[in-house]
Amino acid sequence: MSDPGLRRAVERVASPLGDPELLTARLAWSALAEPGDSVSGRLVAECGPVAALRLVEDLATGVPTPEIPGVTPQELTTSLRRWQPRLDARMFESLAVVAVKAGLAVLTPEGPLWPERFEDLAEHAPLALWVRGEPAALGGLDRSAALVGARAATPYGEHVSATLAGELAEQGVGIVSGGAYGVDGAAHRAALGVQGTTVAFVAGGADRVYPAAHAHLFARIADGGAVIAEVPPGGTPTKWRFLMRNRLIAAVSAATVVVEAGWRSGSLNTAGHAAALGRPLGAVPGPVTSATSEGCHRLLREFDATCITRASDVLELVGEWGVGDDRTGADRPRPEAIRVLDALAVRAWRTLDDIARRSGMSLAEVQAELGLLELDGRIESSLDGWRLHR
Amino acid sequence: MSDPGLRRAVERVASPLGDPELLTARLAWSALAEPGDSVSGRLVAECGPVAALRLVEDLATGVPTPEIPGVTPQELTTSLRRWQPRLDARMFESLAVVAVKAGLAVLTPEGPLWPERFEDLAEHAPLALWVRGEPAALGGLDRSAALVGARAATPYGEHVSATLAGELAEQGVGIVSGGAYGVDGAAHRAALGVQGTTVAFVAGGADRVYPAAHAHLFARIADGGAVIAEVPPGGTPTKWRFLMRNRLIAAVSAATVVVEAGWRSGSLNTAGHAAALGRPLGAVPGPVTSATSEGCHRLLREFDATCITRASDVLELVGEWGVGDDRTGADRPRPEAIRVLDALAVRAWRTLDDIARRSGMSLAEVQAELGLLELDGRIESSLDGWRLHR
Repeated sequence: MSDPGLRRAVERVASPLGDPELLTARLAWSALAEPGDSVSGRLVAECGPVAALRLVEDLATGVPTPEIPGVTPQELTTSLRRWQPRLDARMFESLAVVAVKAGLAVLTPEGPLWPERFEDLAEHAPLALWVRGEPAALGGLDRSAALVGARAATPYGEHVSATLAGELAEQGVGIVSGGAYGVDGAAHRAALGVQGTTVAFVAGGADRVYPAAHAHLFARIADGGAVIAEVPPGGTPTKWRFLMRNRLIAAVSAATVVVEAGWRSGSLNTAGHAAALGRPLGAVPGPVTSATSEGCHRLLREFDATCITRASDVLELVGEWGVGDDRTGADRPRPEAIRVLDALAVRAWRTLDDIARRSGMSLAEVQAELGLLELDGRIESSLDGWRLHR
Repeated sequence: MSDPGLRRAVERVASPLGDPELLTARLAWSALAEPGDSVSGRLVAECGPVAALRLVEDLATGVPTPEIPGVTPQELTTSLRRWQPRLDARMFESLAVVAVKAGLAVLTPEGPLWPERFEDLAEHAPLALWVRGEPAALGGLDRSAALVGARAATPYGEHVSATLAGELAEQGVGIVSGGAYGVDGAAHRAALGVQGTTVAFVAGGADRVYPAAHAHLFARIADGGAVIAEVPPGGTPTKWRFLMRNRLIAAVSAATVVVEAGWRSGSLNTAGHAAALGRPLGAVPGPVTSATSEGCHRLLREFDATCITRASDVLELVGEWGVGDDRTGADRPRPEAIRVLDALAVRAWRTLDDIARRSGMSLAEVQAELGLLELDGRIESSLDGWRLHR
């Protein structure tokens, strides 16, 4: 790394890291291995990113395969064949400059903003992340919820997504999603609308805007929140990367909620990751006549997802209580009161005997209950007996 | 019982029972104790209905309280005070005639049509049932589902209720409900529409039509099915009796499904009985924006009800499989295939090297996958490489 401009760029991006070589190696790994590659995860965990990269470069030149704990020689050979087409030392060295030019920050597990929750991904954890916007947003997702769902959402799905996201963001819950049309977009927008924090994990490079029509939305997300990618700038958002991106959304969020999803929706993949990681999983029900809710109902049936109907349900999953709930069953009437009230009329005065016979209760029980009900103002008495208070 | 007309009436009603005195006692108990009265349940279980009735009549005349296993003297004294206002031997003797005049059959636990499932109600089991229509319908509820819900159902709720009931009834599942407006009525009607069996449990007498507008519906239900009451003819459908009626619906059905219900709907009471009896419980979700589905969502959240979206879900609860289901995930693609397909284009031919680099896979892996995909007709090859098949 002799070019002084390049060195400056790396140093700027790597400032919290303090080790340009380590940063370069991490960025190289993010270019070398496809997201979710477990062999690279284990190799980097065992040797550290710098030595692991050097090892791969040596292997490519024919150095004999060493013994690495946790990685079999067979895995190493197979993986080397996968990585070899992408081994390019000059490209790796330029990645930090690429980040600077694209206006992206880089986060690595060594930095203070790296979410601890990624550790649950173990060998599938990301090796580095490219961040457009505010890197601190990623470090502030302790209280967060992923709201994900169909791109082809119905107005119902978008409405529920926006309502949940807005109310949660107002309560200080970070809204995590995938930046797509439909449920994702509605969630991001509603969070932005209440000046909340929202973070989008994207499948391609953080500099790419996919879908293109979300250019303005991504700019707004990046202004205070973050658009985050696992692959280097320019990276194509392939189907595989969408699936792997989903694991990051599930892992980083305190809870995942599928708002609206068809039977085969990709958001069920996110839900599967959340369940596998032991993260609380919720699903918003919808009309059973709506194909766009079939995936949510499947989660309720088969994955034991929690039925989510409002923001306080999500807060509960996130591990919080506190949104007012006036729907408790506190004032449930006593069975005896129901039976005595049943035996009374609005107009006709009824005698004690009559009320006892009608209610199937003893005279004494009826008398006691009549007293309580009269105290409550539910009934009135006269010389002719009792009747319901109008 | 000296009146020969009365004796004939009793004998006709009691023909499967063969013991007019036993029948009279059971009918007396159904008039004496309010539905769900556990002391009468234990007393009748211990002494038999005839001796139990005689005991109560003796007690009322001042005979000292005897020792009855399972019933404390205190309970007996308290209950006697409840029963005393209704003790009327002449009225009891006339009840069989009342049944005949009202065109009702009477079922008792001694008869062959009495559903075994009522045993699960233990001391709360009904002591006799009054049946308008076909008594055998009650005995044919082994494969049955209760479909219950809001009287003030939405068009959505009525639609789902009718769809489920029609499809289940076509599969030979008996449809049990409460004869009310809304979800109940839609379920009964749809079952009748496919010549299925349907049974309505009512809170008042079986001769009463409540709601009055359901006179025609009740007549149709009774033609092949049955309208069933626990209280004698003329009995008022009180709120208490509605709550107790719900336990019969839950107990007699193989599964209970709440189709649409508000937060405080009475059908949640039926659901509670089903859960307490260990019966499978289902709930149909709806829009979270609909207050009429709040009760169903509550069941999904708090009572671990199964999410019901179609008839086959109910069949599963009833303990049956068989309605065709084409929504399995059999043809899920291999991860490698996804990655190779991601790396291919529709127009441009791509080389093996290029595909390997784009997919992050080894040349050998890519080659193997390309072969499989070409066999499947998903891609095509030329001297220039591979591309997606249009």
